[in-house]
Amino acid sequence: MCGIVGIVANNNVNQELYDALTVLQHRGQDAAGIVTSENGVFNQRKANGLVRDVFRTRHMRVLTGNTGIGHVRYPTAGSSSPALAQPFYVNSPYGITLAHNGNLTNVNQLKEELFREDLRHVNTTSDSEVLLNVFANELQRLGKLRPTADDIFSAVEAVHRRCRGGYAVVAMISGYGLVSFRDPYGVRPVVFGEREAAGGTEYMVASESVALDVAGFKVTRDIAPGEAVYVDQEGTLHTKQCSEISENVPCIFEHVYFARPDSIMDGISVYKTRKRMGQHLAEKILRERPDHDIDVVIPIPDTSRVSAQQLAYTLGAKFREGLMKNRYIGRTFIMPGQQMREKSVRQKLNAIGLEFAGKNVLLVDDSIVRGTTCHQIIDMAREAGANKVYFASAAPAVKYPNVYGIDMPVASELIAHGRTDDEVCEKIGADWLIYQDLEDLVLSCHDGNTDIERFECSVFNGEYVTGDVSQEYLDGLESARSDDTKTKSEGSIDTADGSFVDLYNDVS
Amino acid sequence: MCGIVGIVANNNVNQELYDALTVLQHRGQDAAGIVTSENGVFNQRKANGLVRDVFRTRHMRVLTGNTGIGHVRYPTAGSSSPALAQPFYVNSPYGITLAHNGNLTNVNQLKEELFREDLRHVNTTSDSEVLLNVFANELQRLGKLRPTADDIFSAVEAVHRRCRGGYAVVAMISGYGLVSFRDPYGVRPVVFGEREAAGGTEYMVASESVALDVAGFKVTRDIAPGEAVYVDQEGTLHTKQCSEISENVPCIFEHVYFARPDSIMDGISVYKTRKRMGQHLAEKILRERPDHDIDVVIPIPDTSRVSAQQLAYTLGAKFREGLMKNRYIGRTFIMPGQQMREKSVRQKLNAIGLEFAGKNVLLVDDSIVRGTTCHQIIDMAREAGANKVYFASAAPAVKYPNVYGIDMPVASELIAHGRTDDEVCEKIGADWLIYQDLEDLVLSCHDGNTDIERFECSVFNGEYVTGDVSQEYLDGLESARSDDTKTKSEGSIDTADGSFVDLYNDVS
Amino acid sequence: MCGIVGIVANNNVNQELYDALTVLQHRGQDAAGIVTSENGVFNQRKANGLVRDVFRTRHMRVLTGNTGIGHVRYPTAGSSSPALAQPFYVNSPYGITLAHNGNLTNVNQLKEELFREDLRHVNTTSDSEVLLNVFANELQRLGKLRPTADDIFSAVEAVHRRCRGGYAVVAMISGYGLVSFRDPYGVRPVVFGEREAAGGTEYMVASESVALDVAGFKVTRDIAPGEAVYVDQEGTLHTKQCSEISENVPCIFEHVYFARPDSIMDGISVYKTRKRMGQHLAEKILRERPDHDIDVVIPIPDTSRVSAQQLAYTLGAKFREGLMKNRYIGRTFIMPGQQMREKSVRQKLNAIGLEFAGKNVLLVDDSIVRGTTCHQIIDMAREAGANKVYFASAAPAVKYPNVYGIDMPVASELIAHGRTDDEVCEKIGADWLIYQDLEDLVLSCHDGNTDIERFECSVFNGEYVTGDVSQEYLDGLESARSDDTKTKSEGSIDTADGSFVDLYNDVS
Amino acid sequence: MCGIVGIVANNNVNQELYDALTVLQHRGQDAAGIVTSENGVFNQRKANGLVRDVFRTRHMRVLTGNTGIGHVRYPTAGSSSPALAQPFYVNSPYGITLAHNGNLTNVNQLKEELFREDLRHVNTTSDSEVLLNVFANELQRLGKLRPTADDIFSAVEAVHRRCRGGYAVVAMISGYGLVSFRDPYGVRPVVFGEREAAGGTEYMVASESVALDVAGFKVTRDIAPGEAVYVDQEGTLHTKQCSEISENVPCIFEHVYFARPDSIMDGISVYKTRKRMGQHLAEKILRERPDHDIDVVIPIPDTSRVSAQQLAYTLGAKFREGLMKNRYIGRTFIMPGQQMREKSVRQKLNAIGLEFAGKNVLLVDDSIVRGTTCHQIIDMAREAGANKVYFASAAPAVKYPNVYGIDMPVASELIAHGRTDDEVCEKIGADWLIYQDLEDLVLSCHDGNTDIERFECSVFNGEYVTGDVSQEYLDGLESARSDDTKTKSEGSIDTADGSFVDLYNDVS
Repeated sequence: MCGIVGIVANNNVNQELYDALTVLQHRGQDAAGIVTSENGVFNQRKANGLVRDVFRTRHMRVLTGNTGIGHVRYPTAGSSSPALAQPFYVNSPYGITLAHNGNLTNVNQLKEELFREDLRHVNTTSDSEVLLNVFANELQRLGKLRPTADDIFSAVEAVHRRCRGGYAVVAMISGYGLVSFRDPYGVRPVVFGEREAAGGTEYMVASESVALDVAGFKVTRDIAPGEAVYVDQEGTLHTKQCSEISENVPCIFEHVYFARPDSIMDGISVYKTRKRMGQHLAEKILRERPDHDIDVVIPIPDTSRVSAQQLAYTLGAKFREGLMKNRYIGRTFIMPGQQMREKSVRQKLNAIGLEFAGKNVLLVDDSIVRGTTCHQIIDMAREAGANKVYFASAAPAVKYPNVYGIDMPVASELIAHGRTDDEVCEKIGADWLIYQDLEDLVLSCHDGNTDIERFECSVFNGEYVTGDVSQEYLDGLESARSDDTKTKSEGSIDTADGSFVDLYNDVS
Repeated sequence: MCGIVGIVANNNVNQELYDALTVLQHRGQDAAGIVTSENGVFNQRKANGLVRDVFRTRHMRVLTGNTGIGHVRYPTAGSSSPALAQPFYVNSPYGITLAHNGNLTNVNQLKEELFREDLRHVNTTSDSEVLLNVFANELQRLGKLRPTADDIFSAVEAVHRRCRGGYAVVAMISGYGLVSFRDPYGVRPVVFGEREAAGGTEYMVASESVALDVAGFKVTRDIAPGEAVYVDQEGTLHTKQCSEISENVPCIFEHVYFARPDSIMDGISVYKTRKRMGQHLAEKILRERPDHDIDVVIPIPDTSRVSAQQLAYTLGAKFREGLMKNRYIGRTFIMPGQQMREKSVRQKLNAIGLEFAGKNVLLVDDSIVRGTTCHQIIDMAREAGANKVYFASAAPAVKYPNVYGIDMPVASELIAHGRTDDEVCEKIGADWLIYQDLEDLVLSCHDGNTDIERFECSVFNGEYVTGDVSQEYLDGLESARSDDTKTKSEGSIDTADGSFVDLYNDVS
Repeated sequence: MCGIVGIVANNNVNQELYDALTVLQHRGQDAAGIVTSENGVFNQRKANGLVRDVFRTRHMRVLTGNTGIGHVRYPTAGSSSPALAQPFYVNSPYGITLAHNGNLTNVNQLKEELFREDLRHVNTTSDSEVLLNVFANELQRLGKLRPTADDIFSAVEAVHRRCRGGYAVVAMISGYGLVSFRDPYGVRPVVFGEREAAGGTEYMVASESVALDVAGFKVTRDIAPGEAVYVDQEGTLHTKQCSEISENVPCIFEHVYFARPDSIMDGISVYKTRKRMGQHLAEKILRERPDHDIDVVIPIPDTSRVSAQQLAYTLGAKFREGLMKNRYIGRTFIMPGQQMREKSVRQKLNAIGLEFAGKNVLLVDDSIVRGTTCHQIIDMAREAGANKVYFASAAPAVKYPNVYGIDMPVASELIAHGRTDDEVCEKIGADWLIYQDLEDLVLSCHDGNTDIERFECSVFNGEYVTGDVSQEYLDGLESARSDDTKTKSEGSIDTADGSFVDLYNDVS
Repeated sequence: MCGIVGIVANNNVNQELYDALTVLQHRGQDAAGIVTSENGVFNQRKANGLVRDVFRTRHMRVLTGNTGIGHVRYPTAGSSSPALAQPFYVNSPYGITLAHNGNLTNVNQLKEELFREDLRHVNTTSDSEVLLNVFANELQRLGKLRPTADDIFSAVEAVHRRCRGGYAVVAMISGYGLVSFRDPYGVRPVVFGEREAAGGTEYMVASESVALDVAGFKVTRDIAPGEAVYVDQEGTLHTKQCSEISENVPCIFEHVYFARPDSIMDGISVYKTRKRMGQHLAEKILRERPDHDIDVVIPIPDTSRVSAQQLAYTLGAKFREGLMKNRYIGRTFIMPGQQMREKSVRQKLNAIGLEFAGKNVLLVDDSIVRGTTCHQIIDMAREAGANKVYFASAAPAVKYPNVYGIDMPVASELIAHGRTDDEVCEKIGADWLIYQDLEDLVLSCHDGNTDIERFECSVFNGEYVTGDVSQEYLDGLESARSDDTKTKSEGSIDTADGSFVDLYNDVS
């Protein structure tokens, strides 16, 4: 998962890009980058770390320019190299820099094509570098000195034809403008808006509407599936549908967990969705156990709080902040001769004994993935004196990997993969486990925008909207992941403190 | 405000000190430090920054030893120099290293005495360095090669006689042991506990009980006002009351704002206290406006959440998470030729329009200090469509400075200083402002431990428990603060990235 | 001025590239970079600083691969940005990385062509980035999936047709091999050699033969003017003359000052040349003043030592190390409110009074450029008690700027520009100034390899071998330089400590 | 070996201390530190690295004050921890900071006394910390609020009584002044001088006179053995002989190798001494082989150049710079799975073939210590085509360890320890080896100041001037050294890049 942003304004955009990236920081804490454009020159800063650590005054000073893009990266297995920080850059044609959120499922084939047909070198394992080169190559084919909006849209069309997967992209073409586009199924989110200013209308695109809110931009609308938005050097906005396929099938996991609750995605308020998820879950509980003995509903902070509140309200049960989140998480250091110890969930959460002692507690989380944390929290609840510990997941059982950019374990690591609900319940040690029903989750979203008929629910049902995700591909993920793990355990490079291996090289 | 920790164990304590400091990180994010003791050698690492940034593997490797202390520092005006990071150290007698939370009100006099009578040099503006030297000097006077527990307690007695203010201290004496003590009024908190382990009982002291919980130590009790706790090299615990005065008058602001809700201080659950604060506040509202038209109660995250929940519950009003907190705050960079812009509250909070639109909203905060943020949030609520915006403060009006270690603005910067509640209400732009009554706040705490008859409430009532805080002293604070501000505006030193001006020098 | 190196071996080349760069460090102390190639991936590290500071263990660990190139950069006016560190990289076609020593005189025209005709973006002010793009574009035109040696030579031919100036280049084509070539007049030096090893013959190219000596490679020969050398992935060496013009007119200033004395360039020993320079200069002195009263010859260390020794020997005068060089030069810090103070020559040199007191001293330097240091040293000699102070320059008067890669001030800053020898003598405060005659300097070189009929002597005679250096171009340099100076005085970016603005952006 | 400096002036001394440390950098490249004093506060910066790397603008900004001291440290075995960087500091009494050059031979006894009698903690293995504490303790005993010059001298007297070894010390007492003193045999050098300035006379002390020359101070004289120099806060100079023993027995190795040739030590010009050493050596050669067949004399740069020149002159042989020194030395990196390779002497020196081919060469070095480099250079000479290779050492055979601050291997690692000259000659592979006679070396120095009757020559004759160096002590060195080596091979901490373990802790 990642966050993207792009701004075309009448003044330097560095501070506003920086602010937007902090607003989007929840979408990726592994690395951050900004590229601005000024007088035909790109200025760049990218590095591993949080936004506040990556950008210092000396960097901001060079990030001048009225147009720019930014990116925050989520740490995915085997990809924490600083060389993978985005945006990426190619100098031919025009000079293009690009950042994206998502994942391409045919990246190996594309890489091969780029090498064989386009003679383009891809130096990292990043699919963003591949996507950039596909786009660049399609522009280069046109061979225009001054590409028009139509030329750019034509290149986006080709990208849609060649690339498979989910992707929301922002790119900058030196001397020409800023372009943003979204995959034909709209799996990954991206929204655009405008702001009137002295000097003319200014434009902004971002992964989530909240970034526009904070910057004082008014949301125009989400970019449509397959659509591209282009703001040229003169500040004129062009939009075009660039894909034959265009169906809005947004990723449902954004609503479950990823997006900020104050964002509106494809017309759907994430906050309201989560309230409806709580509502539906309460109704299911009441259906299943009309005489339930739940004394108190306790959310596992922070993501499930909104759902849990509504759930408690509907149940008529007390709602209590019984688990305190430690906002400052540290590391476990491996000293010479020591083994890595599992960081206990106690580093992250602490129970308020009073709210547990002698009570039947319903813990609520947004979802259950590996299940290990669940287990520890349930233990913690019992140690705090809980009588019975029930567990509710605001989402259905996660049984399949995600291939569209959500960093999710492979199937074998998912606790619900190949297990019944009862088996999961036993494994996490709960007295009762209740999952949201998938139709209820979909309904929770659908109620926000009834024009959307389908959602990308593959982690729950294994149905991949792009239709090209084979078992072979999934098996490949599984073996790649275990290889990564091995590699990581052999040795890794601490490049956090000032060292920097730039230029697309893969350290991992 | 600061956090302190000390551990005597049978194995290396570096990781546990580190973990404890992350648990106490909310007490200070400006700097962090750890000193361990091993074979008569102190190993130290301290620097500006969060715990997770200050300690890297290469530091942890040198922080060996079975005894150690740690500190996190709150950024107080004019004191953000890395030279002020704690613990401090003197080598005579024995080698002593010390960290403390609190503030001495007679620091200038002590500094003069140290210089004139004890020939001791104090190189910084830190009162911790003064406190350490007073303690060291009293030990030195005894002139023992091997100080007994009684010698150490005798030195603590002298510290209590000479020092005024609030202080909770942890110190390590090379080759002899770990000592911790608390001021005679117990203004600042410190708790100790133990853990059985192979090799014998292990001991831990910390500012808050939650640090012991996370480390698996069982709380024995709070250190009593004026009491000292000493664990010698053989792991034997000694405790002694070291002050003639000993009255428990704990700082009430710990419960209002500072402490983690999952801590228990002087037998009082912070969490429960906050619930009672909500209860009392609700009752006051119902008394004052039995027919209030509040539609929804919205907490200003995170501190007021517990109080607000109870308040809503008692009022019978809806409770909603209408304000989303941005967990990642960035800086505003000053570019050449630019003026510093105020960072908008929008960087920190975002309103969920739905919960405000057309409603009469009661915003709840833990307290109101300067009032500037209040004003911005109320504006935000109105922009989000609120009909009426009411504002409740879970604490009474803050009218006086704090001199016992809470970093609070000087009187002239406090919005309620010299203003009636109505004037404050108007100034922050609320339709109605309701403050907690002081007696209700005190009651909320007192109910948790009826043995405690008084609380340190000076910020609300101007009564300073130590009885020696003159108007002249307060005026001195006021002018010092405005001098600091001037100094800061003239130039500051960026020592964040690896530079380090160690050894007690005062950069400010 | 810069230094380049490239190695194709049967094992990792990182340590050998590193060692070679330290041997070439005298050619550039401003920045250093290495790129290696392994399994189709480039690994890179480049930054401002000395070789020993730029490369740490963590960087060397990622610089794996059996083929690699390296570069050290000389700080030229206005170009100390880390973004200008070499090698540069383009990903299309194939992935190419390139470093060069020299200067292109038609860079603006090339940049325009690259933009207009080739749609290639050049993001910095570096002519290396331009040269790389010209080469890349010529390869791309051929459109081969697998370029043959002939294809590569054909691209080099096009480079020679399009580029003007002096350049010695080393480049790596991902998956194909290492190529090195030299401008058609051979202005800039580059030599290649081989080493037999288990696994087959290994190849090395470098700016100076001494780098090969140290690495244990045997020099094959200098690359001929206009020639290219290509070592393909199988380790086969190909060479070809790629230019219609091919005349060896090497830069004479390499022998005067730049090259290490233990290098052999175009068959000429730099050491021997310098001895001959001393010889000729002595003969001129004896011609001009047969009855000279020189008591002692003192070299200004280190470059003039060899010439001065021979000069003294021929004169029959004593030779003494009367000036001690401080090997560790520090900075002058500008504190707030202070003016930049000129760093005195005393920081660099100290006089041994004994060798000056009461004597007639002949100071010898390799050349006189701005003349300011000269003046200070002559003053120092007088203060040390010298009776008369004579000054000999082993090179003729420097009167014109260099446009082929030697960083030389613009004409207006050269002390001898527009001045007679007597005027220069007076200005530097010497009692007698003696310059080498140009014919003698040329003879000193020519004697080392009589096949070379001309040398690039433009700084002495204003004749530019490439025939295309117009007065307009020189005027452009002059105004650019004064612009740079202005810019630099306005503000500069300290990127030395861990910050890094990568990817071709121009900080200056 | 180390360098020290101290300045009392009427303006900030930071830049001048910095400049002085660069001039003294040859005395220690491992670490550097400066402490200044201003308004009763010490400001400090110290770290591992060269002077130019340790001090950045942000450090210089805090190093304000008109009085200050500085230090450069030589890397001695087992002591490269940043915690050992000087100056050291104690806060009782007064606040004292101290730096020294030398070595105490009774450090273990002193440490024990400090612990048992004075209750002082010494946290590192540094004898400087011990020396500081002895001095501090003696001052503390006096118990004066305002110590007079006599008090300070009285403390120095006690230091001389308690400490054994060679030491040259500079210290600063907060609020009182700067003091410098020298061991009773004057083994280690220190000189002082003055400069007239607006505001009154300014004073400077330093290890070598050249530091005063560069700063524009006039040398007053060397501090006498056992003497102390004190400049009080009012700028008044006091001097006193503080030792009953006072005999000038300066370290002869300063003249052989360590000191800069442009320094004058105890009235003896190092430059002239080295010339005399060449003269005596030439005479010995002529005595031993009147018909010698030496064609050319080649110095091993840089230290032996002056001697070699005079030697050649006296022999009537040619003098040639046949070995080129690489000024930029890099590291050999140990990659995973690799063994440490010996860095070849080729990285440091390169032979000019021409000067060796077919000739009988006399190589001249200042001394022979381990002999390994010798051997490699002789091999290199033969590879360069030398006919016969003779080797001359300007100093006698080094056979014993140094205990007064010169970092010299233990006896067992010295090639001449327990070997005859012929055996050494065979071992280094020379055709003839000629050592200076000790009486000639002494005479070379004595001729510069006939008042000095003895020199500290222990490395040559095993006679230790302080009379207290037992075989047991030397055996202790030997075993400690081999322990250090083991420790180092097990693991070391890279603290070079911004990490800093301050406060006297011993990382090794």
